[in-house]
Amino acid sequence: MDKPLKIGIAGLGTVGAELARIINSKSNMLAERCGRALVLKSVCVRDRSKDRGIDPNSVEWFDDAVALATSDIDVYVELMGGDEGPALESVRAALKAGIHVVTANKALLAKHGVELAGLAENSGVLLNYEAAVAGGIPIIKVMRESLAGNDVTRVYGIMNGTCNYILTRMEDDGLSFEECLADAQRLGYAEADPAFDIEGDDTAHKLAILTSLSFGTKIAADEIYVEGITKITTEDIRAAKDLGYRIKLLGVACRTDSGIESRVHPTMVPLASPIAQISGVTNAVAIEADVVGSLMMSGPGAGGGATASAALGDIADIAKSRPGHQHGPALGRPAERLEPYVRAKMRQHEGGYFIRMSVFDRSGAMAAIATRMSEQDISLESIVQRRDTPRSEVKNTDLDAQTLILITHETHESAIRAALEAISKDGYLAAEPQMIRIEEMG
Amino acid sequence: MDKPLKIGIAGLGTVGAELARIINSKSNMLAERCGRALVLKSVCVRDRSKDRGIDPNSVEWFDDAVALATSDIDVYVELMGGDEGPALESVRAALKAGIHVVTANKALLAKHGVELAGLAENSGVLLNYEAAVAGGIPIIKVMRESLAGNDVTRVYGIMNGTCNYILTRMEDDGLSFEECLADAQRLGYAEADPAFDIEGDDTAHKLAILTSLSFGTKIAADEIYVEGITKITTEDIRAAKDLGYRIKLLGVACRTDSGIESRVHPTMVPLASPIAQISGVTNAVAIEADVVGSLMMSGPGAGGGATASAALGDIADIAKSRPGHQHGPALGRPAERLEPYVRAKMRQHEGGYFIRMSVFDRSGAMAAIATRMSEQDISLESIVQRRDTPRSEVKNTDLDAQTLILITHETHESAIRAALEAISKDGYLAAEPQMIRIEEMG
Repeated sequence: MDKPLKIGIAGLGTVGAELARIINSKSNMLAERCGRALVLKSVCVRDRSKDRGIDPNSVEWFDDAVALATSDIDVYVELMGGDEGPALESVRAALKAGIHVVTANKALLAKHGVELAGLAENSGVLLNYEAAVAGGIPIIKVMRESLAGNDVTRVYGIMNGTCNYILTRMEDDGLSFEECLADAQRLGYAEADPAFDIEGDDTAHKLAILTSLSFGTKIAADEIYVEGITKITTEDIRAAKDLGYRIKLLGVACRTDSGIESRVHPTMVPLASPIAQISGVTNAVAIEADVVGSLMMSGPGAGGGATASAALGDIADIAKSRPGHQHGPALGRPAERLEPYVRAKMRQHEGGYFIRMSVFDRSGAMAAIATRMSEQDISLESIVQRRDTPRSEVKNTDLDAQTLILITHETHESAIRAALEAISKDGYLAAEPQMIRIEEMG
Repeated sequence: MDKPLKIGIAGLGTVGAELARIINSKSNMLAERCGRALVLKSVCVRDRSKDRGIDPNSVEWFDDAVALATSDIDVYVELMGGDEGPALESVRAALKAGIHVVTANKALLAKHGVELAGLAENSGVLLNYEAAVAGGIPIIKVMRESLAGNDVTRVYGIMNGTCNYILTRMEDDGLSFEECLADAQRLGYAEADPAFDIEGDDTAHKLAILTSLSFGTKIAADEIYVEGITKITTEDIRAAKDLGYRIKLLGVACRTDSGIESRVHPTMVPLASPIAQISGVTNAVAIEADVVGSLMMSGPGAGGGATASAALGDIADIAKSRPGHQHGPALGRPAERLEPYVRAKMRQHEGGYFIRMSVFDRSGAMAAIATRMSEQDISLESIVQRRDTPRSEVKNTDLDAQTLILITHETHESAIRAALEAISKDGYLAAEPQMIRIEEMG
């Protein structure tokens, strides 16, 4: 059996502590599976006094992540977070020093992934980041290794448990977005400042990485179209269900004639589709590729166990590798040969749309709306009209609003936007219209 | 870039031809991802005259698989099938000669997997068999590599597309088992002799491999409890749905106090569970493990593309490996350290049961059945009683049968069997009772 693999971990929060615990408690099993022992040699934490369940005398303690990352270790595990500062500097330093890196840091990869992949390739070491996307779901390994013979045509998924929990609760219990968010915070599923999750940015970071792996392009997190779930109402969710859909916050990336469409937004998915069944904090990623067809993977997207499991898989791969081993490139193809990311314009997006409008009950309103749609060559799949207040209770018909829900056939987003703008100008709408994209499933 | 990887393929049916086509048509992409070119050097077929879409002059042709397997190649791809004869001999010969092996042959692995894994480990080469279980779903890689830090507690799945297609059609279209089987045969989803699929043996082969990977035990295909889907009726499917269940042919393996329970049988799964949503020929495998929690993967379980995709992933891993690389053991832990398989007795299985009985409408029948259940300490979750013929049409009450459906709480299988035997002896049943196990989901 080979020499033990020396592991250094920076950051001993929930994930780091769980990882350290498993490395110690499952040492025999891990040695058998990896062909060598895994040894937790050193850690870097801000506060040494806190009890993290490891014998303080069994490890070397560092205050400085860069010092740990370049010390006598074989693999550096970065679990501090942050897309600059110590996280970036220590990962860079480790890779330059020829030390393998494992990280769960999606923000870091979304911003500096191409540079870091290049450093890893130059040094002939592994940069493994399974835990950075969809937690415990081994999507990175599957895309990077299992699908080596495939050209991906579309990837999409539910990659933020907070949002999926909120949308699930809104549907199951008929509660408002705000109530469900508060519950999510109470249960520890959402941060005190939830913006990063509910505005879709967290999903965008993960999607940026998957987009690069799917299409061999540079990571371009800033080029992703992002729309969060804050404007989704229980009315939308109910109307969606009536029409055979469910609303999910999806990240979707696909190739189009005008470039790559990489977008995060609330999405109508058919009720019977597998992705519609993913409830609560669970994540799921679906891949469509030319050889294999469609694959879907679901599992826990966050949490100490899920993240530690992914990091352990990454470490085991490193333990099995030997000097001289030709590692597959970190981003699937060599960093220097990643193509520039060419962004398809969202207004060229083609798909079906769910539109919900609150329309004043004036004569001519419906005719005007229908005309505006037809001017843009938008054809409608279904129309549902509902009076918000019973007619008997209406005092001033002019101020009475009806809900109008339209599902369009496939059309250009530019057409939808133009139609909605014209309808707004016509003055029949009591409120901003709601527009939610429909995603076709296999 | 390193020397090209020389590939020899034995068997050029649907899968082999598709694999050869992709190796040739995607050579640039594969070289970039693997760090070296993949070259199809030689093939072995029974009939050379058949057109398989490859230039006959571009490859070396062999008549004898063993000769191909030990020729000047780096990886031997066995796609002939069969658990003895040329498949076994050629794989053995390749491994002994230090040549990596990729195979899609589940029957071969179910029978000789431990021996072959040992040969691979002795020679320091890879034995990759992703395509052998659940087709295009990368379940082997995920279990062998991604879950390195996990102890699996249960694995279960839909691993036979033929059976799942038949059960889906029976439910969707209300057709009998026989009608759906005939349709499956017409569509090419079932063989002319369908026994191997519909009796559950194909699922058992795959489950035997997953059981070994899950629990570190020797492969023991003959020790698996197997029950096929031939006795499932549309009545069962309808009754299941009324009670909130769907019937799937599952392979399930879990640890129990008395050993490993590894079983294949029609199973009631809750309608809302993710596995219940897997319809048609699609496969799915769910894993429950101590660190990660629950994962599920779904995708195509068969077909040229799915199988070729899996084999290509296996070949790419080999292309990236280098002499001296410490491969993870083929079955997750070293072959010589696999534990003996200790079979848990099915009569010790604990779970809920669905029981459908056709009961003669005689006084005392219900009381007798309830007594027999109670004698075995079986408590009932629900009881549905239905008259098969309207009472007005009944001529001889003695011969009139009613359908009685029971769902039990968790109990021992031995108790259920004893109760059903006693009820049968009491003489109230018009036909053999149906008994379907319920599987609890997370």
